[in-house]
Amino acid sequence: MRRIVLLGSTGSIGTQTLDVISQHKKDFSIIGLTAHSNIELLQTQIQSFKPKAVAVFDKVLSEKLQKKVSVPVYSGIEGINKIAAMNEADTVVNALVGSIGIEPTVNAIRKKKNIALANKETLVAAGQLVMDEIKKNKVSLLPIDSEHSALLQCIKNENRESVKKITLTASGGPFRNYSLQQLQKVTKKDALKHPTWKMGSKITIDSATLMNKGFEVIEAHWLYGIDYKNIDVTIHPQSIVHAMVEFSDNTVISQMALPDMKIPIQYALTYPQRLAIDSNQFNINKIKALTFDKPDFKKFPCLQYAYDVGKIGGTLPAVLNAANEVAVQAFLQEKISFLDIPKIIKMQLDRHTVKKNYSLREIMVLDRNVKETTRKVVEKAFK
Amino acid sequence: MRRIVLLGSTGSIGTQTLDVISQHKKDFSIIGLTAHSNIELLQTQIQSFKPKAVAVFDKVLSEKLQKKVSVPVYSGIEGINKIAAMNEADTVVNALVGSIGIEPTVNAIRKKKNIALANKETLVAAGQLVMDEIKKNKVSLLPIDSEHSALLQCIKNENRESVKKITLTASGGPFRNYSLQQLQKVTKKDALKHPTWKMGSKITIDSATLMNKGFEVIEAHWLYGIDYKNIDVTIHPQSIVHAMVEFSDNTVISQMALPDMKIPIQYALTYPQRLAIDSNQFNINKIKALTFDKPDFKKFPCLQYAYDVGKIGGTLPAVLNAANEVAVQAFLQEKISFLDIPKIIKMQLDRHTVKKNYSLREIMVLDRNVKETTRKVVEKAFK
Repeated sequence: MRRIVLLGSTGSIGTQTLDVISQHKKDFSIIGLTAHSNIELLQTQIQSFKPKAVAVFDKVLSEKLQKKVSVPVYSGIEGINKIAAMNEADTVVNALVGSIGIEPTVNAIRKKKNIALANKETLVAAGQLVMDEIKKNKVSLLPIDSEHSALLQCIKNENRESVKKITLTASGGPFRNYSLQQLQKVTKKDALKHPTWKMGSKITIDSATLMNKGFEVIEAHWLYGIDYKNIDVTIHPQSIVHAMVEFSDNTVISQMALPDMKIPIQYALTYPQRLAIDSNQFNINKIKALTFDKPDFKKFPCLQYAYDVGKIGGTLPAVLNAANEVAVQAFLQEKISFLDIPKIIKMQLDRHTVKKNYSLREIMVLDRNVKETTRKVVEKAFK
Repeated sequence: MRRIVLLGSTGSIGTQTLDVISQHKKDFSIIGLTAHSNIELLQTQIQSFKPKAVAVFDKVLSEKLQKKVSVPVYSGIEGINKIAAMNEADTVVNALVGSIGIEPTVNAIRKKKNIALANKETLVAAGQLVMDEIKKNKVSLLPIDSEHSALLQCIKNENRESVKKITLTASGGPFRNYSLQQLQKVTKKDALKHPTWKMGSKITIDSATLMNKGFEVIEAHWLYGIDYKNIDVTIHPQSIVHAMVEFSDNTVISQMALPDMKIPIQYALTYPQRLAIDSNQFNINKIKALTFDKPDFKKFPCLQYAYDVGKIGGTLPAVLNAANEVAVQAFLQEKISFLDIPKIIKMQLDRHTVKKNYSLREIMVLDRNVKETTRKVVEKAFK
């Protein structure tokens, strides 16, 4: 029986995590839940899963919920940190969106929790620090992400020295075949139509810019210790093959599955075992064709930035992440255009002086500062 | 250092095995070699690899070779058996073609040799007996075949109970898109043009009839203990994905490589390690598309026969193999047409009374008898 804290339980990954847990009730129990602001759904989840405590980021809403439920309801980042560190839990599933996910992850690791990580920003912004803490505290870090879960499955029992290259697949997003002219005119509505995956809005925009794939490149570097020069991205519109690992004997092991986040969620919770799952059957003869092509770094500069920033390392990836978070938010608020996203990010990267080593506090302060500066840029220049 | 006996060293798999060994000289030494009749090539191989003894199946040619070389040259099936059982060897690579490969494999297993098996007939005709001997003698049996090597790589570190289905890929051969009318007229020359693999003539014809894939279904059943109902075949003309394994969590692990027999040969010799290999680089963006489709059991009845015969088991698969061997030979001698191959095989299957258990001797006698009867059928009915 795994005793689980789930951070971000009312979001896309959070609700799917609870779906998975519902299907294997004897294997899991829920110790704590956290939500940003959806207290109606959180209340239902409390009734179903009976956590010992919860947190709501929004203070007013947390007080509102506390009046309706008997479990303690904490609030703010302190509340989330408290839930992440609960003594009764052995595993923390981090399904938060954005850099808010970094601190609770590090706190949970320091409390010797195993981590199932859906929050991309944790490894992008603070990869070195997180991996050091994982090692020091002798806990496991398993990815909740179809690509990194796929990599794990391809690589897990192979000699790491025989790994020559890893390839992450990208659907290419809704604008894969757009010209630069067409990209100039895309709307928020266009960008939110992902061809193969149903996801939250932030990650859907990141998929459309290929920043999401760039983040995954950085995450793959940290999770599996692969040099950036040996990490490739291929455009695979069907989203069936999730990753490939090439070995010294020119052999490739790949993982395939229909696009369904429940699969990597469950694997992160049951690894190395596999359990039956309530998802659509795989049938290669129905899929018929799998296609692959090089990504266009010129049309999608965010992917290039991620490689460049990853290679430089230090505090620069945190800047990439913070600037992107604000730019995407501004695009979702229809304040800037789609092609403004990479421009704004580039501006922030160019003005940053990289620091090689950093503490958690430094990264959090940097994150806040870059976001503030980026917001100002958005407000001023892109009115 | 692995000490290797190579049976069938002058054939397609045999010469490629020596290529692989040449690339890793410090890891392997050649203890014995056998050839059917190509004594010129065998003589060159003796000079390069310095085996302690060799055998030539043809008695006259073996005596001819003995006059030119100082190592002992044995002859006949006894000679091959002698080489297969050499004390100095720890591994026997069986690259013989046809049912002649069965007896030396069993003899080698009984002498506690690990087996690297390219000879399909061994497991098709005598699967139960061979697997029992492998278990009893506590030796390993590794496949030299891209599909079964792929399966091994996908399955090796997974819980067998979580395996739901395995899928073998088939190029579909040169006649994949032919109508039955077109199939009636195909010539030996047409059939020998395999679209993706360069192989010996027997296996090339077996690929054109899909009997080769049928044999692989039976082999997969024995090698990995999978029920026939959970073994699928998909037509994949690019021959890049060699096998897929589907697990209980609707996840598929697959192995890919450019079609090159040196890859599975080397893996069988270095398993579970991987070594660098002298073969073309894999590049998914150059491959562009992988396609999959259901096989046509009506146009290619040999595949259906293999499933049916495999499920019944006992002595019936040995009949399938023996009848096929004679029919393919007759086709290569241009005595019968392409569509006569399944007809002749069906005739032999229908007249056989299945015996559930069998000894090696019984299988060898049955093999001889079925071949004789089949040859008579060929000579009489298909003049």
